[in-house]
Amino acid sequence: MAIVKPERPGGFNDYSPEEMQQRAVLFERVRTVYERFGFMPLETPMLEFIDVLAGEEGSDMRIWQARVPGERERRGLAMRFDHTVPLARYVAANITDILLPWRRYCFGPVFRGETTGAGRYHQFYQFDADIVGVGDLTADAEIIWMMTAAMGQITRRPFKVKWNSRKIINGLAEVVGVSGEVIDGETQKPVPRTTLFFRVLDKLDKIGWDGVREELMRPPSNSFDTTALELREEHVGIIHRYLSVTSSGTTNLDELETIIGDSPIGLEGVQDLRRVAEMLDSMGVPQERHAIDLSIARGLGYYTGIVFETIIEGAESFGSVYSGGRYDNLVTRFTGSSQPATGASIGFDRLFAVLKHLDELPAVSPSPVKVLVMNFGEPEYESQVLGILASLRSAGIPSELGSSTNIKGQLPRALKLEIPLIVLPGSRELSEGNVAVKNLGTRKQITMPVDEMIGYIKRQLKLG
Amino acid sequence: MAIVKPERPGGFNDYSPEEMQQRAVLFERVRTVYERFGFMPLETPMLEFIDVLAGEEGSDMRIWQARVPGERERRGLAMRFDHTVPLARYVAANITDILLPWRRYCFGPVFRGETTGAGRYHQFYQFDADIVGVGDLTADAEIIWMMTAAMGQITRRPFKVKWNSRKIINGLAEVVGVSGEVIDGETQKPVPRTTLFFRVLDKLDKIGWDGVREELMRPPSNSFDTTALELREEHVGIIHRYLSVTSSGTTNLDELETIIGDSPIGLEGVQDLRRVAEMLDSMGVPQERHAIDLSIARGLGYYTGIVFETIIEGAESFGSVYSGGRYDNLVTRFTGSSQPATGASIGFDRLFAVLKHLDELPAVSPSPVKVLVMNFGEPEYESQVLGILASLRSAGIPSELGSSTNIKGQLPRALKLEIPLIVLPGSRELSEGNVAVKNLGTRKQITMPVDEMIGYIKRQLKLG
Repeated sequence: MAIVKPERPGGFNDYSPEEMQQRAVLFERVRTVYERFGFMPLETPMLEFIDVLAGEEGSDMRIWQARVPGERERRGLAMRFDHTVPLARYVAANITDILLPWRRYCFGPVFRGETTGAGRYHQFYQFDADIVGVGDLTADAEIIWMMTAAMGQITRRPFKVKWNSRKIINGLAEVVGVSGEVIDGETQKPVPRTTLFFRVLDKLDKIGWDGVREELMRPPSNSFDTTALELREEHVGIIHRYLSVTSSGTTNLDELETIIGDSPIGLEGVQDLRRVAEMLDSMGVPQERHAIDLSIARGLGYYTGIVFETIIEGAESFGSVYSGGRYDNLVTRFTGSSQPATGASIGFDRLFAVLKHLDELPAVSPSPVKVLVMNFGEPEYESQVLGILASLRSAGIPSELGSSTNIKGQLPRALKLEIPLIVLPGSRELSEGNVAVKNLGTRKQITMPVDEMIGYIKRQLKLG
Repeated sequence: MAIVKPERPGGFNDYSPEEMQQRAVLFERVRTVYERFGFMPLETPMLEFIDVLAGEEGSDMRIWQARVPGERERRGLAMRFDHTVPLARYVAANITDILLPWRRYCFGPVFRGETTGAGRYHQFYQFDADIVGVGDLTADAEIIWMMTAAMGQITRRPFKVKWNSRKIINGLAEVVGVSGEVIDGETQKPVPRTTLFFRVLDKLDKIGWDGVREELMRPPSNSFDTTALELREEHVGIIHRYLSVTSSGTTNLDELETIIGDSPIGLEGVQDLRRVAEMLDSMGVPQERHAIDLSIARGLGYYTGIVFETIIEGAESFGSVYSGGRYDNLVTRFTGSSQPATGASIGFDRLFAVLKHLDELPAVSPSPVKVLVMNFGEPEYESQVLGILASLRSAGIPSELGSSTNIKGQLPRALKLEIPLIVLPGSRELSEGNVAVKNLGTRKQITMPVDEMIGYIKRQLKLG
């Protein structure tokens, strides 16, 4: 028989028992906050119809397609690349059953086809919470509030939820003359020039102002290059002034208004920022946990209002671990009418990498087992030994029986798995109705009648 | 813009908030038992290399293949069809890091390409627990014990874990002269004739003895039909006698020994059944919760020893909800050497359908929200109303703010979502530093100072 290499495809991860327990702790911390904010769980399948996934926001993505060989192809299937598009599909399909406003959270893997690298995988988990059906800014403020509450449960490090409004950047685009559409050379689809503009602004953290300035002014590299913005010196100056409105973490909204207030959408954006900041204060969100950041644009085409990102101090290079924004038009593709919605998504695997980097992962035990019942492999006592194991498990105490084929390995195993107690059912003790229990922490060993064992062990483990 | 139909592909399910909560309760009940038996969580990716998945057991399966269009194809990828093959891949790849015996549980979706129907989906969840590294029958008995313990947490209905040994049926096959291999007409791969034999026996519940008898004796339907067993009348008589050894739920092992004891593997099988039954008694597994069932063969090629299935009374037609067995050779494909392993898998979506059918799904609330803060939309009190909401959430009380754009809809919403308390922050009360709280169950409404609200609400909700 040919040997098959037991390899895992690149960009796909196993989660070890230790990681699974750490992930479960983090999941539970966030879930508790989501439920405190009134969100309910929902799950959609890993696969959807390709045309359901591939809207305008899908066109940027490399999507995993899936099929059963030999099956007739009707409407192609693909793997979801986020939870937001499946949410929109669900809301559109179930709109008559859903009681609006509707708050749902969702935890599960999503799939991307892009080249993988450090912290970028083909399969990774997202943990989303979204509010559907609230058009006013209360919902946006609530999402930012929720993000700060969840982050506070995840890390003891300083973190900041940074937010902005698409209206602000649309206003800026208007003021510097970025408008219209171009045909993308690769996909041959029309792309708004504002989208190209947002993408360049999003790179500020990575390439700095000089890099952004260069990209904004760059002429076409050849006659097929439709993506050059070719901004004039004067307009680049306005953008620089715009990006400098924030100093020492505080954004001067009055000054921002003088820069983009001539644009009606920009003026509306400034008013939105004022309202949200005011509500966040009333909600008691600490001012050091959030900040307006005018450089945030969020690349995805579907955002229409307030957008957010989250950075943890000491892990800036990992980028945002918790992002999102308002997307009032996502359902429109399915229903023809719009439905207001806003929400945020934790990049759960990236967050995990950040917490690992910061040495902040929850402490977990290498095994759930609290008692190892030693097994000396004596057939005449097998029934009594199994009975001891049964009484422990019936009492709800996670327990394990030692392996009779490796008697010498049982104690090292207990030590390695940090199992706190061992039961020693020696033949002499058992023949007298007794059993010995040893605490591997205190090294204290006590012999007692078998029927007192459960009570003693519960006291040792400090269980009810 | 063209409207896209918000449809979900057939064979893939959404899980509504109600179903998600019910699933979480069931998951937690089983997880608690798995940890009590010393199992640890592990998760592997949704995708594996095709050649890793498609061993002998994969050849029967229609597998979902996945790719990113335009990417160079190296080693093809496919979606896992169970958790057992990925477990084998993981064990083979990490054998030096794993402390044997190794017990892991796994909860997650698997994917099948077969035609879907009632209770049969393309994507469904399995909840597995396996012991790797124990070759003796203690592990098999522990799995059956664990299954009865988990089932006891899942249903109040009578259920039965039915078990058998592959050695018994191999012995039977030997006695009735089923041996050798045939080339499968469809896949052109060699298939052991015992596998064909097991598949026919597995149909007993569905097609009855007359159907099984007919299939066992059937001659080839045409010259390409390699799957006909063509058993002789005399051998079918032995099989009938074998299947009749069990009466009134009790299997006469002495009589079984007279039927298949001439086969060495059959004799070994009978001894295994005796040992496991003895251990289950010592473990205190109630005799009415398990039974030897000689008709059980488990179709999958990889089983080598004790196999098990689980039927709930009143839901026999759904088939087994919890199945598995010993598979000592699964790692061999990857390492060239065998590794003993045994385990069982809950068909979680089928179990859910069964519990729904039996009206045994856990009761859950339509919303996690305990307090609805009414919102009368008065701008001068917004800050105070948001402050009340913040104090509730800070106290860990799941709360929601009513929608200011639908003031009349707030009370009906609270009633529909079964939210037990509403806070009425009326302008007159607020201006005096007061707030009214109404219990929608008792209809009692009390006005109190704002700073006494949290204490009162905690008492109403019976929270610490």
